[in-house]
Amino acid sequence: MRKTVIAASAAALFSMAVTAAAVKPEAAIHYRQSVYTMIGWNFVPMVDMIKNKTPWDGAEFSKNADRIAFLAPQLLEGFPEGSDKGADTEAKPEIWKNMDDFKSKMSDLVRETKALSDVAKAGDETKTREQFKKTAGACKSCHDKYRKEE
Amino acid sequence: MRKTVIAASAAALFSMAVTAAAVKPEAAIHYRQSVYTMIGWNFVPMVDMIKNKTPWDGAEFSKNADRIAFLAPQLLEGFPEGSDKGADTEAKPEIWKNMDDFKSKMSDLVRETKALSDVAKAGDETKTREQFKKTAGACKSCHDKYRKEE
Repeated sequence: MRKTVIAASAAALFSMAVTAAAVKPEAAIHYRQSVYTMIGWNFVPMVDMIKNKTPWDGAEFSKNADRIAFLAPQLLEGFPEGSDKGADTEAKPEIWKNMDDFKSKMSDLVRETKALSDVAKAGDETKTREQFKKTAGACKSCHDKYRKEE
Repeated sequence: MRKTVIAASAAALFSMAVTAAAVKPEAAIHYRQSVYTMIGWNFVPMVDMIKNKTPWDGAEFSKNADRIAFLAPQLLEGFPEGSDKGADTEAKPEIWKNMDDFKSKMSDLVRETKALSDVAKAGDETKTREQFKKTAGACKSCHDKYRKEE
């Protein structure tokens, strides 16, 4: 039994090594940019409602918030070691020098997007607008520190 | 009251028109390619398990299947009228000539990815492998007809 467990662990470790090796920096950069593109696609209609450019549509806002809450936790895996170079990227090299801080900011984003999804689902426009500010703040806090200015 | 309703409807229609006009073909193409990239990112580790290149990991497979089931319904909005041109795209113009058929294929994908997510969550490897074939078949059926060969 013990032997089986060790063999299985070795296989798992080998698999992780293979998987890690298989993800090229270009692929990780392309992937994380895709997650941000999808977040942006869903963010824009929310901003339009927040700024009263379009009428408030609670169901639509909730749908977009739900998607962003699902996407946010998928960002971090797009920043593996070594993916600071390899393709055009707006990610500053500081990310990999301060990975604990970067992860903490990503956790903030995950928490605030989840809170936005929950409050939007509950249907209170005022509370949703308040939580939107916090969520946008979590985006900005990370962009200010870790995204290159264009 | 009636006047208010009409005014609200007019505002909603105007908003829709503005939103539709605001989505440029380039943005839609970039968006849909991002959804496909995210689907691919999660698809690859599943294929590796299906082909026994990596050991079966039911929890990991289920996580990836869940993500793809969430992403699949977000594809269709990336194909608005007029987005057959505007940037590099592998989407054939036939999509917009056969939109009902294309939508039907997208519905098949949504159904099969949802089924894969459900069966993977239930944890039966054999059934998951069977459903994976159906899901990959739904991808291929659409690619064969509507994706340009590179």
